[in-house]
Amino acid sequence: MKANTFRPDWTEKPPPPGTYRSVFKYGNPRQFKHPSDAWYEMIKRDFHLGDDDFREKKKEGLEKVALSRPVCLQAAQIGHIKSIVGEENVATDDYSRVKFSSGKTMEEMLELRRGIVREVADVVVHPRDKNDVRHLVAYCNQEKIPITVFSAGSSVNLGCRPARGGISLVISTHMNKLLEINELNQTARVQPGMFGPAYEEALNNAPERFGCKRRYTCGHFPQSFEYSTVGGWIVTLGSGQASTYYGDAYDIVFSQEYVTPVGTFKTLDYPATATGPKVNDIMKGSEGIFGILVEVTMKIFRYMPQNRRRFSFMYPTWEAAVNASREIMQSEFGKPAIYRISDPEETDRGLKLYGMPKMADKFLTLRGFKPMRRCLCLGNVEGEHDYAKLVARKIKAVARKHKAISLTGYAARKWEHTRYTEPYMREDLGDYDIVIDTLEAAVTWDNFHRLHQGVRAYIKSRRDTMCMAHASHFYPQGTNLYFIFIAHMTDPEEFRQFQRGIIDKIQEYGGSLSHHHGVGRMIGPWMEKHLGKEQMSVLRALKNHFDPNNIMNPGGQLGLD
Amino acid sequence: MKANTFRPDWTEKPPPPGTYRSVFKYGNPRQFKHPSDAWYEMIKRDFHLGDDDFREKKKEGLEKVALSRPVCLQAAQIGHIKSIVGEENVATDDYSRVKFSSGKTMEEMLELRRGIVREVADVVVHPRDKNDVRHLVAYCNQEKIPITVFSAGSSVNLGCRPARGGISLVISTHMNKLLEINELNQTARVQPGMFGPAYEEALNNAPERFGCKRRYTCGHFPQSFEYSTVGGWIVTLGSGQASTYYGDAYDIVFSQEYVTPVGTFKTLDYPATATGPKVNDIMKGSEGIFGILVEVTMKIFRYMPQNRRRFSFMYPTWEAAVNASREIMQSEFGKPAIYRISDPEETDRGLKLYGMPKMADKFLTLRGFKPMRRCLCLGNVEGEHDYAKLVARKIKAVARKHKAISLTGYAARKWEHTRYTEPYMREDLGDYDIVIDTLEAAVTWDNFHRLHQGVRAYIKSRRDTMCMAHASHFYPQGTNLYFIFIAHMTDPEEFRQFQRGIIDKIQEYGGSLSHHHGVGRMIGPWMEKHLGKEQMSVLRALKNHFDPNNIMNPGGQLGLD
Repeated sequence: MKANTFRPDWTEKPPPPGTYRSVFKYGNPRQFKHPSDAWYEMIKRDFHLGDDDFREKKKEGLEKVALSRPVCLQAAQIGHIKSIVGEENVATDDYSRVKFSSGKTMEEMLELRRGIVREVADVVVHPRDKNDVRHLVAYCNQEKIPITVFSAGSSVNLGCRPARGGISLVISTHMNKLLEINELNQTARVQPGMFGPAYEEALNNAPERFGCKRRYTCGHFPQSFEYSTVGGWIVTLGSGQASTYYGDAYDIVFSQEYVTPVGTFKTLDYPATATGPKVNDIMKGSEGIFGILVEVTMKIFRYMPQNRRRFSFMYPTWEAAVNASREIMQSEFGKPAIYRISDPEETDRGLKLYGMPKMADKFLTLRGFKPMRRCLCLGNVEGEHDYAKLVARKIKAVARKHKAISLTGYAARKWEHTRYTEPYMREDLGDYDIVIDTLEAAVTWDNFHRLHQGVRAYIKSRRDTMCMAHASHFYPQGTNLYFIFIAHMTDPEEFRQFQRGIIDKIQEYGGSLSHHHGVGRMIGPWMEKHLGKEQMSVLRALKNHFDPNNIMNPGGQLGLD
Repeated sequence: MKANTFRPDWTEKPPPPGTYRSVFKYGNPRQFKHPSDAWYEMIKRDFHLGDDDFREKKKEGLEKVALSRPVCLQAAQIGHIKSIVGEENVATDDYSRVKFSSGKTMEEMLELRRGIVREVADVVVHPRDKNDVRHLVAYCNQEKIPITVFSAGSSVNLGCRPARGGISLVISTHMNKLLEINELNQTARVQPGMFGPAYEEALNNAPERFGCKRRYTCGHFPQSFEYSTVGGWIVTLGSGQASTYYGDAYDIVFSQEYVTPVGTFKTLDYPATATGPKVNDIMKGSEGIFGILVEVTMKIFRYMPQNRRRFSFMYPTWEAAVNASREIMQSEFGKPAIYRISDPEETDRGLKLYGMPKMADKFLTLRGFKPMRRCLCLGNVEGEHDYAKLVARKIKAVARKHKAISLTGYAARKWEHTRYTEPYMREDLGDYDIVIDTLEAAVTWDNFHRLHQGVRAYIKSRRDTMCMAHASHFYPQGTNLYFIFIAHMTDPEEFRQFQRGIIDKIQEYGGSLSHHHGVGRMIGPWMEKHLGKEQMSVLRALKNHFDPNNIMNPGGQLGLD
């Protein structure tokens, strides 16, 4: 490869206020992460593009948001809403209506770049507290005004799109405080709109902030950590990157308070209970269709970063990596916190992108770790000092038994630097019609390879399309598969079709429709076939009970109506 | 104490067939466990009784069961039922009707001793397989015939009493097989009527029975293990004695198949999923009111008894025992399997009953471990060899920090011998009007002592009443409290009143209405106040959905209707 002095003009300035781009840009408006030169070279080569294709940005979405769509609420209704939350907490301007109706799907990004806006809220409302929410829900139920909750807006499945208009209720503006830490119970009472970093920072500093004896951690670190909220984690059933140890969002909820059209309730504070079906669990994953989460008590964990032990390994094959991982999860010597295995394509691209020295590559290849066969594994162990040490030692022993070679903690450390920032590249790539998107599924061990091969074969059947996969949340009974595809696509409709095709394949090859992204409206249409009509009718019965007027996030969420 | 040659004539013969006693006797008809001489002496002393009170047995229930109550199903209906399951699997004789309508509450025992029978089934049906169940439920739904499932009948809350008559559907007669072990997924597909020992034995012998590579354990060992079934564990939300490590029944279910009046469905096999509220979890603890569990896939664990490490400690005080236990559960060095702490009265009586040498008592007292203050802790650790070793070492270190003294594994071993047999003593004691019963609750750490003191004070407010309590299922956020009371009572109504008073106190002092016994009809009346009307209405909505004609275990179960 000869020296290339050209580099695309990756955007380095925050999107101008009021523009479509400011709606779809991920995360901090002033933060960017550009594809590395290696990335750029790889894209050009794999997609048969040249520097010329990167000289001019396509559809950046720099136009001001303009709707020219009337607000479909009566003035009296808006007036009443203002009387509940205060005038300053109600907005009906075009920009607010679009911003608080948009998530972070690639589909939305493609549309917003072109100034296309689908359904939007009529009114954006920022409740100050749970009483405001109670009054709003009661009023909207009476007036049959739809309510869709917006918290961080990092949804990747159209889950916060107000499909029937009405109110976008922004829970993160005011309801974002850590209310109490209970050290005896190791729980934290928190408002649902609190963002990950603020929550974690408060727990880490519990002695200074709350006069606690110890420091704590929330244990939940999804890739969207910086731009997602505690409530969002729960109602969409998220999983943090360290879920193998700390559990999924489902597991770390202790009790919850909900406002629904048929009443407000708080589930009870018990570590376990044998008092019939657990309403506390029924509400998790309800994605806004039953009611609004207004307060939650979360389990918290001792903060002991000093005990953390990192590891990384190269396995000769995908089969070896999977077998070793299963062995680790079933051996009962404890669990790692972060644990990930990358399939051959992800491993290969990752090594190239993150700069493995040529010599190391040569060495690995000579030792039998061949490109497009070898697989990277990385992670860490947390918990008490000797426990972490033991688990790390045992993981190493299993890896060795499966012919892996230790890369020390290096790759794990390297990965940590980018653990939250990958989504930032979407804008840069999108400026040149490169789409990157992800779909994911849960799967049992006995169906792992079939699902991986089936979905991968579909993605690779499209010409010049990258498909990288990893498993990153582990259980004794199985894991998840996370598929990343990257392609050069100029037609949003082609993207839609292709992406829906992947969901078809996940279904066909027996994956769960989602391991931790949730369902929203995007996956909704597959739900009935996936769960079967008997189970779907249970969800419908609950929906009818909580929300007889169908005002809570109506219009296809979770595959209902 | 002078030598006493008198010993009550504890029953040593199995109850004659067809008698009330054969209905209420616990477990194996030929197995007995008599109160030791120390027990007998303690009872006499504490209850101010003499040998004369134990010369004659009271109300043994040796009469033949006789109902003189008509079968309230039409001959054509019974004929149709016979055509579904086969004539040999339908019974309408008095004895069957009573036997398969009775659980193991003290209340039922007191009544059956007196020949009192409350509600009974009209017909007892033993389905051969899930197709039989499907046909039965469809037919009964059409004919509006109530169905109450009976499996092992060890219910301690009137949960299998056919309150509205109809069918008692005995699931354990035929549907009691282990169908499949999936070694990759570490799961076992099993019929709900399989008893604990048969299930565990099959898993332990997986290589011989199923050609597996490894041996497995179910991880679930409730006190009723020998006389309870896998399905019962799930639908009543049981907990095994090793639940601190393996999890409660709720946690070890992987997927389930149910027959309900509105259809049959099997939940999906995924280690986790983010596809909305989990119907798999909604069904757990449904106590027969939604439908009938006909097949279940359970998580299983590697069977490694060779790694087991036992421990026991004496703590100087209840506070020290509780604080140390909390520290152990929150320290993140792993978890013990069995872990129990006994309050001072249970410790004291236990030491006396199980024969602590006088010298040891003197030694302990001198060291500051005083009677009615000191507390026993015992348990074991399972899992991988080095993990078990580490956890045992850490538990010891915490115990020492809290001024406990190690009693080695001795007490744990001793306890294991009686872990399943305690219920056998009920009959012996009952023969002389001594009642023994238990009630239990879940509780957070911050409410632990308040609940313990509040309930204990109520029990002790009755003259000459023993109250022993322990905690035996631990979580980072709290534990359970298990209260055992023993009293001399001649009036069944006094027992009922007193027992209901304890439930009142559990409610008043903030315990969960049950940690692992379930609700049934006995605790049902407290449910609405406990959960609140909003949560109860969720259960009712689900009930209406699954069972619009109210045929599934109707009549007060879980506090419904």
